[in-house]
Amino acid sequence: MDISQRGLDIQESPIRKLKPYADQAIERGIHVYFINIGQPDIPTPQPVWDALKQFDEEVLSYGPAQGFLDLRQAIADYFGSYDIEINSENVVITVGGSEAIHFAFSVLSDPGEEIIIPEPFYTNYNGFAACADVNIVPLTLSVEDGFRLPSIETIAEKISLKTRAILLNSPSNPTGTVYTPEELERVVALALEHDLFIIADEVYKEFVYDGATHKSILEYEEIKDRAIVVDSISKRFSCCGARIGAVVTRNEQVSQSVLKFAQARLCPPTIEQKMALAAYRMGRGYFDPVQKEYQRRRDVLYEGLKDTPGIVIRKPQGAFYYIIKLPIEDSEHFVRWMLTDFQLDNETVMVAPAQGFYSTPGKGIDEVRIAYVLKEKDLKRAITVFKAGLQEYLKRA
Amino acid sequence: MDISQRGLDIQESPIRKLKPYADQAIERGIHVYFINIGQPDIPTPQPVWDALKQFDEEVLSYGPAQGFLDLRQAIADYFGSYDIEINSENVVITVGGSEAIHFAFSVLSDPGEEIIIPEPFYTNYNGFAACADVNIVPLTLSVEDGFRLPSIETIAEKISLKTRAILLNSPSNPTGTVYTPEELERVVALALEHDLFIIADEVYKEFVYDGATHKSILEYEEIKDRAIVVDSISKRFSCCGARIGAVVTRNEQVSQSVLKFAQARLCPPTIEQKMALAAYRMGRGYFDPVQKEYQRRRDVLYEGLKDTPGIVIRKPQGAFYYIIKLPIEDSEHFVRWMLTDFQLDNETVMVAPAQGFYSTPGKGIDEVRIAYVLKEKDLKRAITVFKAGLQEYLKRA
Repeated sequence: MDISQRGLDIQESPIRKLKPYADQAIERGIHVYFINIGQPDIPTPQPVWDALKQFDEEVLSYGPAQGFLDLRQAIADYFGSYDIEINSENVVITVGGSEAIHFAFSVLSDPGEEIIIPEPFYTNYNGFAACADVNIVPLTLSVEDGFRLPSIETIAEKISLKTRAILLNSPSNPTGTVYTPEELERVVALALEHDLFIIADEVYKEFVYDGATHKSILEYEEIKDRAIVVDSISKRFSCCGARIGAVVTRNEQVSQSVLKFAQARLCPPTIEQKMALAAYRMGRGYFDPVQKEYQRRRDVLYEGLKDTPGIVIRKPQGAFYYIIKLPIEDSEHFVRWMLTDFQLDNETVMVAPAQGFYSTPGKGIDEVRIAYVLKEKDLKRAITVFKAGLQEYLKRA
Repeated sequence: MDISQRGLDIQESPIRKLKPYADQAIERGIHVYFINIGQPDIPTPQPVWDALKQFDEEVLSYGPAQGFLDLRQAIADYFGSYDIEINSENVVITVGGSEAIHFAFSVLSDPGEEIIIPEPFYTNYNGFAACADVNIVPLTLSVEDGFRLPSIETIAEKISLKTRAILLNSPSNPTGTVYTPEELERVVALALEHDLFIIADEVYKEFVYDGATHKSILEYEEIKDRAIVVDSISKRFSCCGARIGAVVTRNEQVSQSVLKFAQARLCPPTIEQKMALAAYRMGRGYFDPVQKEYQRRRDVLYEGLKDTPGIVIRKPQGAFYYIIKLPIEDSEHFVRWMLTDFQLDNETVMVAPAQGFYSTPGKGIDEVRIAYVLKEKDLKRAITVFKAGLQEYLKRA
């Protein structure tokens, strides 16, 4: 009476499995700076809370499978504000960006087919690939060149007869890299040449710094039928617990099929759709102070770490993550040691080992991901504690 | 540039595809009684709304993948109130009963394997089977005997080397049938003999009438490792739009694997978990008036239809549905005709064609599902209009 092979194979969250050590540290009275996960500390905007308080119905009933029309229209308008022409029919609301990824994988690939994803990548892609029985083919990037996409020829080597799509996540979790138009054009050209879809995870769209702008895959007219954006309000509006995302595509066959998968699970949560509507209606002015705040934190982290001996760090232009290389042999061991054996004035730091973001075995073993999701003062202190920990770890090794 | 085969194959919701005809009727000024879908009209209880209004956090953040501990404990206590010993570790909170079904299918079966389900069955099982690439093997029941389970030998004929589980939904959507302990024991015996899991969809647990009680699959000690309950607050507390469900099982390997799938999608909605907690804390007294209300409606519907010439109807003991057989050839045509061509004093009725609840081709073509989700007065009027429509339809045929 065994469970299924896929049920056995699915990877445990590499971040969550270290959580018990953090809990134990807290129990011992240690203050832990959590810069391991992408849970922003920016307050959820007031109009979102107002929408919650104003929700007034007698029965909390099902909404439409594709989501409420006003929210779909608001999302279309949001894209419109970036000069991307989208209508409400191109938008299907999902239960978080998570479900959007799952639907995209299921609608574009049959079991055993392949999706190419630059690594390191968002670890939960693995979970949805397992769920949909799709194989992820990694395209390995490296910290030394800031995780830029390789040449068109190198990307093309990953394409097989089973390839269905290339997934791009820009700004990227976990690297923070924002692809340039020139990099995107390589993928666009390959999609046309090899008859592929492009899935673009653009949930960090507004988190770009140094005056950079994000270019959406939806801006490329020549692949308008091949482009599928997976989106979410989690980071955009600091609404991680809302579970509202979307699949946005002009390919009608794709959106119709996504809708049928959506019908099976009935609807996304009703109340949070009203909250999301309020968020989108705030307009883009909302993002300015948020952007400034994250840019400052990014700079604080870079200044704090760049001259540390043995560390390889490049300053990324987006999201709120760094992948850095450390002069260590096993980052999971290091992260655990920081929680179990180290403290500086009763404080320690939790970062994320980077192996979990790679699917090539052995890759990322000397790297960690740091999320700058703490206020500047706490972040500075976390860096001090982190560097002290690293120094002591290296001495003992 | 085609989408996936499964994306093409997935069935459109047979109920939703007739929705445009209802919309057009409404546009023509016709009042439509909707007794086609299982959206209860019972008000969502006040403590649930209070929990919503009291939600007070600065950041709407991720919760744990398995759901909040207090809610998992409240659900364990709820089972305890039925003398079913469950602890919080046996409960994983899901995004509606929908996700619970999807997780159960994925964890118990690999692509191409089989799950036996008595038909007619909840049509969305098809969607999750398509998603998980699992084959549903139908076990056909019939209206004439009230959709009772057949003999153990007849059920056994459906078992193959690829069978992984038998799914039971009692009280049943769409038949209203509540399986007797004797019927459940047949399935328990087969699970032991053929090394199978039993998935029990018990979301209508409290919707049982005539003093009957619902027997849970979790009450059978001998299959304690084989029993997986998929559950939801949607009907139980009139919270369809909340999207809170659960997988409940004492099989640790199953719950650990479900948890890993759950980690990939991060967490269920945060606010609704607080609302669900308030619902479970009301205690079982809440169900008494709800039960009485539905029992009365069930009786009203039965009295209204039982003597109609040509109709085959059996009075079920649970849920809030009837499947009835009509003297017609194509119920989809009839349902559409009721919306496009019929009205009685500017009113008509929408019921659900039953084909969508069968996976055997041709089955249910002369049957419809009626959901008694209207107040008694409206329900009586809907029956009058429905019978008038049927009479006119038969005359014209």
